[in-house]
Amino acid sequence: MNYLGIDLGGTNIKGGVINEAGEILREASRPTRVEDGADAIADGIAALIRDLEQGETFGGVGLGCPGTVDDESGEVVCAFNLGLIHYDLRLAIKARTGYAIRLGNDANVAALAEAAVGAGKGAHSTVVITLGTGVGCGVVLEGKMLTGYTGAASELGHMVIEEGGEPCTCGRKGCFEAYASATALIRMTRDAMAANAGSAMHAVARENGAVDGRTAFTAAQCGDAAAEEVVHEYVKYLASGVTNVVNIFFPEIVAFSGGVANQGEALLAPLREEVRRQEFGGAYVKRHAKLVSCTLGYQSGIIGAALLAKA
Amino acid sequence: MNYLGIDLGGTNIKGGVINEAGEILREASRPTRVEDGADAIADGIAALIRDLEQGETFGGVGLGCPGTVDDESGEVVCAFNLGLIHYDLRLAIKARTGYAIRLGNDANVAALAEAAVGAGKGAHSTVVITLGTGVGCGVVLEGKMLTGYTGAASELGHMVIEEGGEPCTCGRKGCFEAYASATALIRMTRDAMAANAGSAMHAVARENGAVDGRTAFTAAQCGDAAAEEVVHEYVKYLASGVTNVVNIFFPEIVAFSGGVANQGEALLAPLREEVRRQEFGGAYVKRHAKLVSCTLGYQSGIIGAALLAKA
Repeated sequence: MNYLGIDLGGTNIKGGVINEAGEILREASRPTRVEDGADAIADGIAALIRDLEQGETFGGVGLGCPGTVDDESGEVVCAFNLGLIHYDLRLAIKARTGYAIRLGNDANVAALAEAAVGAGKGAHSTVVITLGTGVGCGVVLEGKMLTGYTGAASELGHMVIEEGGEPCTCGRKGCFEAYASATALIRMTRDAMAANAGSAMHAVARENGAVDGRTAFTAAQCGDAAAEEVVHEYVKYLASGVTNVVNIFFPEIVAFSGGVANQGEALLAPLREEVRRQEFGGAYVKRHAKLVSCTLGYQSGIIGAALLAKA
Repeated sequence: MNYLGIDLGGTNIKGGVINEAGEILREASRPTRVEDGADAIADGIAALIRDLEQGETFGGVGLGCPGTVDDESGEVVCAFNLGLIHYDLRLAIKARTGYAIRLGNDANVAALAEAAVGAGKGAHSTVVITLGTGVGCGVVLEGKMLTGYTGAASELGHMVIEEGGEPCTCGRKGCFEAYASATALIRMTRDAMAANAGSAMHAVARENGAVDGRTAFTAAQCGDAAAEEVVHEYVKYLASGVTNVVNIFFPEIVAFSGGVANQGEALLAPLREEVRRQEFGGAYVKRHAKLVSCTLGYQSGIIGAALLAKA
């Protein structure tokens, strides 16, 4: 039996039909039409389900959504960039398609996919950390997604690592997200560029047309001291949050995705060194968390949503 | 069938016989004799088991131990204040008594007890935070103790909340433990006393014979401004770490034990207010973590160890 997974994003709704092995058989996509309101979003999801149905009846339909969702009630509790607040998405999709969809947070379902068929395949436990505009996190312990009592758990990005530090979108100050997101890296890069007129980061940014998450890494690879300092500072904060995650969960796998994670070993090698140095009991325990890159790319959102429906 | 639970501490080895309902039927205790080495500790544990046996055969024996343990191998990985490093305690106890003991970290088994028959009875998930010399933590999710891939998980006390802050016993700087333990509260109290010669904290400390975790709370209740500032500062850091715990696990119950937790509502009321203000999505989610006091006292260590053997 096959399952349908839907990744509801701010720009597009992506969907895929997944077989029992977690492989995508076919995909489709539609624009999200956030500006037309909640019912238009539900219309788009229903249309996407019909696009992908092709006469087939699915074992279930799962949907990953940004923000906070409640899979028990079927409600999107709050997804600000979609304009959804206390919206009963399960009811809306049931009325349009007959399917009672399962709901998950997008970062959580992505972690479910990586744990099942990606970077954490076969592992005891997997934490996925997405270093993008924000820091999205999902935790899968012995095959089970951590969602907590409220359905909203695993918000590791909103763990304060610097009391009273940089303001975060969540209202707190000093969150992991405010130091480890691509947004934070760009902030650090801009600050360093303003203070170092002669840094190679200026040339790199000009060539790419903008300051982005790659600017400091690229200039650092050319030996630019100010850029090396930005990378060092970014890795320091990232290591602080990742070591927290290791000390809290002692997972087998910590897998990274998102724009900054594309740096691969330029990011992971210094990060591993710092986390190993700081982890609790690191000198004595025989097993350590492995820090790796995610392997499924954007498909993790689709596959994870389908796996949620399969569970 | 009854089970035997043992709480191995730095001063005493406490044991109890527990029935299926998690009630203690009888208790006994022996000194730990840390100074005589690992085998003497094992001798003490074996003697305690015989003390409590009284002709009965137990369904199992569980033991809670400070530091890092590996229940898979039966080894105490490192428990510095007991002088145990890579010590095969299961083998040692098996040789002396015939019982293959189950091993847990002491804070983790205490949380297991509180979750099963204490503050978290009937709850979806329980986090226990012990505010003593250090900050001990245990996490129980849907009845299951979080121990991770290495067996050493739930070290929430060693989550950095202030990058580069106060040095912690674990080697990191700025850990939750370095701000929320009784030790940290005493440090804050001493600093404030040194800066405020006229504070009522001096009189309170003289009366009690020492500066301790109660000094600032007692003086604050008398309206002493410097003491109020200490309590405010302590609660600020405690709330920062507890909000992190809430955002990570979204547990139903967060239960506090240890010396500082004896302040009860004087601690919990301002803490609840601050955590509710800071928690992720707090204005939208319908269910919130309840912050309460633990109910089992020192018996949680014994009961939890026995429950581990029963699992």
